[in-house]
Amino acid sequence: MKQPNRILGLLCLLLFAGGSKAQPGLNWTEVHPGIWKLTVGKPQRISLLSAAEATPNRRGLAELPKTAFPLDKAGISVKIVNQKTYLRFPLEREEQLFGLGLNFQTVNQRGRILNLHVDHYGGKDNGRTHAPVPFYVSSRGYGVLIDAARYLTVYAGTAVRTDTRNPPVLSDRNTDKKWSSQPYSDAVEVLVPADGATIYVFGGPTPMQVVQRYNLMNGGGYLPPKWGLGFTQRVPTLYSQTDILNEVKGFEAHNFPLDFIGVEPGWHSMAYPCTFEWDKTRFPNPKSFLDSLARRGVSANLWLNPYVSPTASLYPKIKPLAGSHTVWNGIVPDFTLPQARQAFKGHFMQQHLKLGVGGYKIDEVDGYDNWVWPDVATFPSGLEAEPMRQTYGLMVQTMTGSWFRELNKRTYGLVRASNAGASNFPYVIYNDYYSHKDFITALVNSSFIGVLWTPEVRASPSAEEWVRRMQSVCFSPMAMLNAWADGTKPWTFPEVEKAVTEVANLRMQLLPYLYSTFAQYHFEGKPPFRAMNLVEGFGFKPTTVAGTFDATANPYAMSIRKDIKDQYMMGDYLLVAPMFTGEKSRKVYLPAGKWYDFYTGKLVGENEEITINPSLDKIPLFVKDGGLIPMVPPRRQAPKPGEVLPLEVRHYGTLPGSFLLYDDDGVSFDYERGAYSFTRLSVIKDPNDPLKGQEITVPKGKPFGYSASVKWTFMSVGQ
Amino acid sequence: MKQPNRILGLLCLLLFAGGSKAQPGLNWTEVHPGIWKLTVGKPQRISLLSAAEATPNRRGLAELPKTAFPLDKAGISVKIVNQKTYLRFPLEREEQLFGLGLNFQTVNQRGRILNLHVDHYGGKDNGRTHAPVPFYVSSRGYGVLIDAARYLTVYAGTAVRTDTRNPPVLSDRNTDKKWSSQPYSDAVEVLVPADGATIYVFGGPTPMQVVQRYNLMNGGGYLPPKWGLGFTQRVPTLYSQTDILNEVKGFEAHNFPLDFIGVEPGWHSMAYPCTFEWDKTRFPNPKSFLDSLARRGVSANLWLNPYVSPTASLYPKIKPLAGSHTVWNGIVPDFTLPQARQAFKGHFMQQHLKLGVGGYKIDEVDGYDNWVWPDVATFPSGLEAEPMRQTYGLMVQTMTGSWFRELNKRTYGLVRASNAGASNFPYVIYNDYYSHKDFITALVNSSFIGVLWTPEVRASPSAEEWVRRMQSVCFSPMAMLNAWADGTKPWTFPEVEKAVTEVANLRMQLLPYLYSTFAQYHFEGKPPFRAMNLVEGFGFKPTTVAGTFDATANPYAMSIRKDIKDQYMMGDYLLVAPMFTGEKSRKVYLPAGKWYDFYTGKLVGENEEITINPSLDKIPLFVKDGGLIPMVPPRRQAPKPGEVLPLEVRHYGTLPGSFLLYDDDGVSFDYERGAYSFTRLSVIKDPNDPLKGQEITVPKGKPFGYSASVKWTFMSVGQ
Repeated sequence: MKQPNRILGLLCLLLFAGGSKAQPGLNWTEVHPGIWKLTVGKPQRISLLSAAEATPNRRGLAELPKTAFPLDKAGISVKIVNQKTYLRFPLEREEQLFGLGLNFQTVNQRGRILNLHVDHYGGKDNGRTHAPVPFYVSSRGYGVLIDAARYLTVYAGTAVRTDTRNPPVLSDRNTDKKWSSQPYSDAVEVLVPADGATIYVFGGPTPMQVVQRYNLMNGGGYLPPKWGLGFTQRVPTLYSQTDILNEVKGFEAHNFPLDFIGVEPGWHSMAYPCTFEWDKTRFPNPKSFLDSLARRGVSANLWLNPYVSPTASLYPKIKPLAGSHTVWNGIVPDFTLPQARQAFKGHFMQQHLKLGVGGYKIDEVDGYDNWVWPDVATFPSGLEAEPMRQTYGLMVQTMTGSWFRELNKRTYGLVRASNAGASNFPYVIYNDYYSHKDFITALVNSSFIGVLWTPEVRASPSAEEWVRRMQSVCFSPMAMLNAWADGTKPWTFPEVEKAVTEVANLRMQLLPYLYSTFAQYHFEGKPPFRAMNLVEGFGFKPTTVAGTFDATANPYAMSIRKDIKDQYMMGDYLLVAPMFTGEKSRKVYLPAGKWYDFYTGKLVGENEEITINPSLDKIPLFVKDGGLIPMVPPRRQAPKPGEVLPLEVRHYGTLPGSFLLYDDDGVSFDYERGAYSFTRLSVIKDPNDPLKGQEITVPKGKPFGYSASVKWTFMSVGQ
Repeated sequence: MKQPNRILGLLCLLLFAGGSKAQPGLNWTEVHPGIWKLTVGKPQRISLLSAAEATPNRRGLAELPKTAFPLDKAGISVKIVNQKTYLRFPLEREEQLFGLGLNFQTVNQRGRILNLHVDHYGGKDNGRTHAPVPFYVSSRGYGVLIDAARYLTVYAGTAVRTDTRNPPVLSDRNTDKKWSSQPYSDAVEVLVPADGATIYVFGGPTPMQVVQRYNLMNGGGYLPPKWGLGFTQRVPTLYSQTDILNEVKGFEAHNFPLDFIGVEPGWHSMAYPCTFEWDKTRFPNPKSFLDSLARRGVSANLWLNPYVSPTASLYPKIKPLAGSHTVWNGIVPDFTLPQARQAFKGHFMQQHLKLGVGGYKIDEVDGYDNWVWPDVATFPSGLEAEPMRQTYGLMVQTMTGSWFRELNKRTYGLVRASNAGASNFPYVIYNDYYSHKDFITALVNSSFIGVLWTPEVRASPSAEEWVRRMQSVCFSPMAMLNAWADGTKPWTFPEVEKAVTEVANLRMQLLPYLYSTFAQYHFEGKPPFRAMNLVEGFGFKPTTVAGTFDATANPYAMSIRKDIKDQYMMGDYLLVAPMFTGEKSRKVYLPAGKWYDFYTGKLVGENEEITINPSLDKIPLFVKDGGLIPMVPPRRQAPKPGEVLPLEVRHYGTLPGSFLLYDDDGVSFDYERGAYSFTRLSVIKDPNDPLKGQEITVPKGKPFGYSASVKWTFMSVGQ
């Protein structure tokens, strides 16, 4: 090898921080209360947040407590070398890191390396996932977002610098049993393969408040239409309009909830690639089909992927606005071009939305690499393939979402790819991975990164798995049976039909609770389905179990860390602990405070790990002491505007409590202009009597779709 | 989203080729006969080949047939946009692609996407592997090498351009059963994340000649010392010098072959990170220990990883020459700096080589990401972490190899990472993955990319697996039992001790054949262990089996392609078809011409797939019609310089044949200065009599370590 050039040859725009002083030149600006922004180098033309186009919810942000910059600035380092940006943030001992994409197997990401890359999930938490959001939330109550539409590599407490002030303990693997293959690291390091990035730091002081700030900055969480929280069935691919109407009648006959129905690829005259045009054989009269559905109270959701078939009428318009490579013979619209969006809008508005289509399922915008455009693709706007990949899911969501908004009609659909800035999108993420347990972990993780996820049900090899999966999906953002390939129905396993119907009914009964929980997501930024780590009083400390040495299976004796990844909160009060097929008992980790069985009101424990042995017909649910659960009687569909429902409010435990019940018309965006009500439901405690009074304040605003006489049920009194 | 800038914003240095003309500005230079080079943009300071420092074997290259530029230049495209290089090469229908790194599960890479990245193998052929060589060999008889020390993404016939002249057939997934999730692609596309690269195109006309040119350009294959082809045992980590001497005596007592012994981390006074200094407790007198081994004819191979412990005497010298991050608390020498190499050389020469150490096992230079330096690391030479990762394995091989060469002493060791340009390196790759079947596929694939691979044996759950693994490893570049963790011995399963001893003895008997085969590697560039696809007359055409649709397991009905990946050639004549535990029979695909059982000489078939049911005590071996196999009697060790052995030459089948027997002193580099012999062994055919005569030409040159009277055995005569 030749004598290398000893001159560094580096373009060090900014130098590492020395000593305990902040790196000079890093000027953090507080852009919102408790949110600081720093732009370094030359950020790219399109970032994740610019593609997401969110409008911050300034009112919600203003209501969060003031907080100081939450990190030690001396521990933050930024440098740009050879068109790459190197970032470093400090870590304390015992600190846990959450987020960093929609992970399926792990919750605490500390100690992991992630290459954040929009992709289908391939079975490993390595950063390739449907929503590789470059945002992490620390257990110490702050968050960091790297807003760059690039394949970022994040070293989440793995990289160890020679100049660290907290070096790991030196030990000899020959003789020291405590030798670890993963020495202690005191930093998160990020490689951005671009000569600039925008960074946001979020204050807390709690992890929940960090997430709230993140979601509120991105517009606040999306508030689905009420029907979106009902049950949905997706029908087999080649179902005709008659087949689908019969399917709807089948749900009526079984008295099974159904609010919207998923119409799979067969509605296109050609699919993979797509025409976005109704197939005349299977759907001879789309308008009357959609009208018939509407008369039965059912909304239609149309499947698509955005790759335009040469046989589509859109093709000539999109051809000059498409990328250099095809996907399944379809051209790839460059949605950074307004003309491409406009062409889609014209067609979709005319052919779908104005006929009554309620939403879309946008498939195949994630990957995997073998499907979508390669990284060598080019696009007419000049945007490179990599940022196009990182933002395509965001762009199809903003684009389609804006059409419904223009009609003042809320939608709620499905998408396979998302990224940072998605909190306010009317979409739920799904995939084909189909591991029930890992689906629940994804639901847990979705709460850190401003996305929604559904553990959809397709088929199951047994009645037990069927009912367990149906129970979980009814406690998720979208209660969906996706029968595109199998034609399964909720009653496919007659031996558990009753239990399945019960849990679907229970979801319908919980609509007031669930809808208010989504309102919290929107107005306060609190995710509706929450990791336990976002719950105050959740005292679980991750324990690391020393790895068992195995010469071939684990030659480095890598340690295993325990995570709580199979239970979560739905809203403020309801703890959900799904059961998985083959398991007759499970452990549940209860946060501080007393917890009660949802079904019986009985005390089950407090601040401890309990073991439960639930029956097959119930999903384990627990309510916090003082928790209030507003419910309605079982019903097949979410209420339509103007409907007034009787309200039952259950109270659990012995403490007083309150619940902020939200309502609006359930379908339009009028709530953004003040047409909504918040109603305070309260249980108060008299000093001499455990639970004497209860009250309901007059609703602030309207509409308010509940009858004034509330039925109060004290679930734990007298037990 | 804001109105995007419609101006392309691209720096198109070179434009795509249009029509059927070659892209202007691409000036290919024939740098060696049948090898063309093209440099585009600004290649990086350090490339794979520059790190490998190979000297082309011009004499060997000159002996290959002249050939024209093997590709349609109009199908080659190069462009550089935003610091990235986009490459495209044409593909014909039915063309197969081999190589693209040390893959473990697939042979034909067409239809796959690989991100070539030095890493431990993680169970998927995705480009992350120990030798991610960016070189492919086409079944049409040409090769392409991208010489860039970057993480390259290769789309090996997956990307489909809108402007392709060979578009895939458009079909509707709704109704067309022939719809494929992977449409036809007529190109290999490569993304180089740097603003330049050097490209080599290799002519054939056969795939074998492509590989020969590649290997010869990189110095020709390495010729191991004779002892390197004997058996090697690696001892448990904490074995002392006494333990190791007892181990050697154990091999003597069992009359089991042993030529070199692997000394594991315990020889260091500290390991992970390493001191490279003998532990005074376990190795109180290294010199006498090594001398004792030498007296027993055994060479010592020392394990190491290159990360320097703060307790090492080398540490102060290396500290200013090391990277920004530590690996297991060890500093990472920047081996692009001559001072770092010099410091290592001084220590290693004095402390190891001059005491008699015969070689090294260089561990942990591959990854995985959690172990080695992160991509955010910086190095004092200014080389980025990414090219450092891609070349580190190459650099440790050239560096250590040069020390032995300076002493005129051949070495033969183990390394965990390599890359392009490695043909002449004295190292065999290994890993921890331990799948017997996949190990054999790696052996097959090693032949395309100029590296050696050993399917090492560690432990086994059964005697059957044990003997099957031992059989395979005896038909590989290094016959190794790696008992660092288990302390297993070849006779660990007494019920198969005889079969294991027999196969080890057979390897020793085959040394003349094997050594001559390695000489072919060196002088002609033919890999010693060869994929069937490199064999003339191998008529296998890959068949693609339509995927079975499964809503959850295979929702896109991906097809499966059959590869021949579990059999290979050792040299010109011997076909090896290893058996795997649990399998009582297997299929073997025989190339054109008649094939004979090695053990019995019986005809087994020709140009067909046969099914065999071999016994447990034999590894299936087949010899080509006219094949000659020179052998010696069973022996425990390879011959030392000056030894003269009796020679038996076996002939198989009914055709005449010949074999070029190579010999030299077996230990030094004197053969490079002419001190070697080639002897032509021939069986000739009289027109009236099937196999009448045989002859042995006088050896050209010397030494020649065989007695003049050859024993000829006609294995198939009279059958």
